[in-house]
Amino acid sequence: MSTATTPRPRRILVIGGVAAGMSFATRMRRRDERAEIVVFERSGHVSFANCGLAYYLGGVITERDELLLQTPASLGRRFGLDVRVNHEVTAIDPAGHSITVHNRSDDSTNTEHFDELVIATGASAAIPAIPGSERMLVLRNIEDVDALHTSLGDLDATTANVVVLGAGYIGVEMAENLAKRGLNVTLVQRPAHILGTLDAEMVTPVEAHLRANGVDLRLGTEAVAVDDSAVQLSDGSSVAADVVVAAIGVRPDNALAVHAGLATGAAGGIRVSAGYQTSEPRIYAVGDVAEKVGAISGEHELVALAGPANRDGRYLADTLAGDEVASKPALGTAIVGVFDLTVASLGSTERALRAAGRDIRVIHTHPVSHAGYYPGAQSLSLKLIVDAETDLILGAQAVGKEGVDKRMDVLATATSFGITASALADLELAYAPQYGSAKDPINHLGYVAKNLRDNLSASIQWHEIDAELAAGTLLVDVRTVAEFERGAIPHAVNIPLDELRERLDELGDRRVIVHCQVGQRGHTAVRILAQNGFDAVNLDGGYRTWSAATA
Amino acid sequence: MSTATTPRPRRILVIGGVAAGMSFATRMRRRDERAEIVVFERSGHVSFANCGLAYYLGGVITERDELLLQTPASLGRRFGLDVRVNHEVTAIDPAGHSITVHNRSDDSTNTEHFDELVIATGASAAIPAIPGSERMLVLRNIEDVDALHTSLGDLDATTANVVVLGAGYIGVEMAENLAKRGLNVTLVQRPAHILGTLDAEMVTPVEAHLRANGVDLRLGTEAVAVDDSAVQLSDGSSVAADVVVAAIGVRPDNALAVHAGLATGAAGGIRVSAGYQTSEPRIYAVGDVAEKVGAISGEHELVALAGPANRDGRYLADTLAGDEVASKPALGTAIVGVFDLTVASLGSTERALRAAGRDIRVIHTHPVSHAGYYPGAQSLSLKLIVDAETDLILGAQAVGKEGVDKRMDVLATATSFGITASALADLELAYAPQYGSAKDPINHLGYVAKNLRDNLSASIQWHEIDAELAAGTLLVDVRTVAEFERGAIPHAVNIPLDELRERLDELGDRRVIVHCQVGQRGHTAVRILAQNGFDAVNLDGGYRTWSAATA
Repeated sequence: MSTATTPRPRRILVIGGVAAGMSFATRMRRRDERAEIVVFERSGHVSFANCGLAYYLGGVITERDELLLQTPASLGRRFGLDVRVNHEVTAIDPAGHSITVHNRSDDSTNTEHFDELVIATGASAAIPAIPGSERMLVLRNIEDVDALHTSLGDLDATTANVVVLGAGYIGVEMAENLAKRGLNVTLVQRPAHILGTLDAEMVTPVEAHLRANGVDLRLGTEAVAVDDSAVQLSDGSSVAADVVVAAIGVRPDNALAVHAGLATGAAGGIRVSAGYQTSEPRIYAVGDVAEKVGAISGEHELVALAGPANRDGRYLADTLAGDEVASKPALGTAIVGVFDLTVASLGSTERALRAAGRDIRVIHTHPVSHAGYYPGAQSLSLKLIVDAETDLILGAQAVGKEGVDKRMDVLATATSFGITASALADLELAYAPQYGSAKDPINHLGYVAKNLRDNLSASIQWHEIDAELAAGTLLVDVRTVAEFERGAIPHAVNIPLDELRERLDELGDRRVIVHCQVGQRGHTAVRILAQNGFDAVNLDGGYRTWSAATA
Repeated sequence: MSTATTPRPRRILVIGGVAAGMSFATRMRRRDERAEIVVFERSGHVSFANCGLAYYLGGVITERDELLLQTPASLGRRFGLDVRVNHEVTAIDPAGHSITVHNRSDDSTNTEHFDELVIATGASAAIPAIPGSERMLVLRNIEDVDALHTSLGDLDATTANVVVLGAGYIGVEMAENLAKRGLNVTLVQRPAHILGTLDAEMVTPVEAHLRANGVDLRLGTEAVAVDDSAVQLSDGSSVAADVVVAAIGVRPDNALAVHAGLATGAAGGIRVSAGYQTSEPRIYAVGDVAEKVGAISGEHELVALAGPANRDGRYLADTLAGDEVASKPALGTAIVGVFDLTVASLGSTERALRAAGRDIRVIHTHPVSHAGYYPGAQSLSLKLIVDAETDLILGAQAVGKEGVDKRMDVLATATSFGITASALADLELAYAPQYGSAKDPINHLGYVAKNLRDNLSASIQWHEIDAELAAGTLLVDVRTVAEFERGAIPHAVNIPLDELRERLDELGDRRVIVHCQVGQRGHTAVRILAQNGFDAVNLDGGYRTWSAATA
């Protein structure tokens, strides 16, 4: 209510009006009622539901308007923001504290001064540099979704063919949604498996599920050329394609920053301080265009996810309001629906950690999503990767039809705050039989972690069996005779757990790998054997993990 | 494989073979292959699904066998346990290290020596001491469920009347399941509201939901007498009753312990050390019969929940195996399905904490369970109670149709490990639009907690409005005109948020309470007002919480 003469308000310019940029701008207004805040957005829309675009194409979200969460007008009224869509920033002058802006609506160009500049340009879909790439469509913004919607709408769903390049989270979501439209979908992935944030044995069931739902999955190959009607793959095959979607990944939209001389990292992300400052003092960067510090690696990396983007936008506003803020490391928690399966992950993979030479313990479990005696319980597969020295969680992966998101959120909470894997045993989670078990799958992970930590049990992984067998280790399947006869690991001998105490003399004096269906009976067997003087280890995850890995 | 002469194995006796007792016995075997472990169970069944009993009565679980998870024979084969059902321990001789056991099958009585004794007798259903109480049935074990099944089976579902006394978690589950059978169910609760682990404004919608599903809910009254056909209530009314179920609570089955001179607490639980030892050195107690240390209170209390019981049984085995173990405080995380609603809580209530004079901050939010633009999003109501000094979580409550269990599990994880309420803002939870929001409801709780902690926003509770209005505070409803006209808080004036900056002069110089529908627009309004020099507070939880509280 002050009426005294006040100095000129600070002028904060924001480049990019989606997740990070808009989280920043609205929080900045709540922190500073007087600041002049101008948001420049190159496309025609701000603050849209970028994680919903594929579901609009799949017909799950039926109204395009549902994707448009805010408009420049609504943001102006509510937050006093000056939001300018169809305005492309073409240059940054760090020394002059100004930017050049091209208004795409009237083709005018202006120079805008700033006290502080926030770069939140995000990331663009990468396009393979191959012949015919101009035919490829991508899915990053409303204009992209409109273009795809038009292209798909022109097709006869029952005969048309769509090829999706790249089977990361976005590619898998696209494939699912296009298949739901009734299209013939081919999903092409250069690595040997989909969803690189998980390890192979976790995703093979997901690959089978995609195929069972009609997606033609091509693994270990990539597009080498696109012509008018087909995509040529590196394995020599050709796939008919009325529409080609590129979902091989994203790269930071860093051109403005690079031209302005701002420091960037090896992967092209803008290098920022813990307070989001770039190499220029009045210029900040948040969201997909900026590097994050990885929670597991401790290194600068790129993490193109909505959660960290929004968090960073919010904290940058606090920084500019004068708070001492340090950005949080990014865990990379991610989730995707694959028809009626859910797949989620956080942190690093076993693959990456072994390649980095880390000393890790790996745990696979296959619990049920809620008490088995209550109808509808579904099998889950969980994987936990633990630092062998500190017992801290380095990675987690989950696949199943029910309760995957819940378990991943608990693991994300534990991992973020440095709760050890063994301490998961102690968690008091909400239990009634339709929701979980008195010993929740999360508790079970903790039991296994603690038993390994305390040397009450030792385990080996599916990929270590061959070397063990070659060295003369005995493989004992402790499942029932009926289970064994339905399918067994080569070279395994069957001694059911309930007979093990009486049949110890059959084992001789060799080292023993025991295994059961999921690992739990195997643990009891290891305890029996170890207390009887045997050198015994449990096959982690049992027959289920081995089957998935060798499928 | 040692064949040397060994000393007599230790002899461990366990009284009670359900959750804590059987978790202890099986873990004990895995820790000590040689120990003699004998489990005495008074009833005819061990290790049954006690949390599933109500669902069997409701017909959700169709096969009685589903409730029977293990048998004495299966436990003998797998774990080398000597499990004796229909064996009632009638006395403990601490000095003589022996117990007296009555075999109910052949009516014989024996004395059994122990090296260590584990009391896991659990808790029994309390029965109101009123005329006709002998007609009441309870639900604690398989024999109870069989008796109820028989009684209910004799009834004509369309005309029969069942009265459930007590509307805690078990009483509500019973009422729901009996109503699902088609019975006329009356649920009687002495306090003014159901589910005492939540506060009133959180459960009023649940009460309405019970009534909407046909349950005749009688609050603030209790049974004073039961006759052949009806229950007389203290409010003077009479309710027809073919069957009466007592679910007013449980009390520890402590008779054996008391007669043996073991120390017990005020509520009758056996007092135990951090290593589960009773006042006698070789005698231990776990599960519902033993006191726990409350995670919030730090006091000895009774917590009759499966999770802590199993945990304590497991840790006691580690203790007896020689590990240094300290029992974990009990958080009291609990959950119940109420038709298609889910209700969950942990820690303490606002009611209890205010009564104890604790300095707390209270947060109500009403987010959606997943991204609003994705079909099927459901409204949730969350409540967080935070220590005003430490920012630690003291209690959490949640009600909704989807995603309640997930959010409660994340809050249980955070609370157990001392993660502050404000730090919830930083969590990277698994987000795709069918599972959550880029800013998850958990993050939102963190935003609000942090804004309160950092004095960026101040709030008041629904029960503080009247005193404020009496003191001359202005109540401003910042919702739209249309929302205001559909129903408003008495004495509120309507200034929509988007007009607030232009209408500041209408406010005069009074203190201002602002409110919106759920609290979010109210926060923006408080920020506008505070930066313009007003003394402004936000009504926590907005119109939604106020409506529920005053319904």
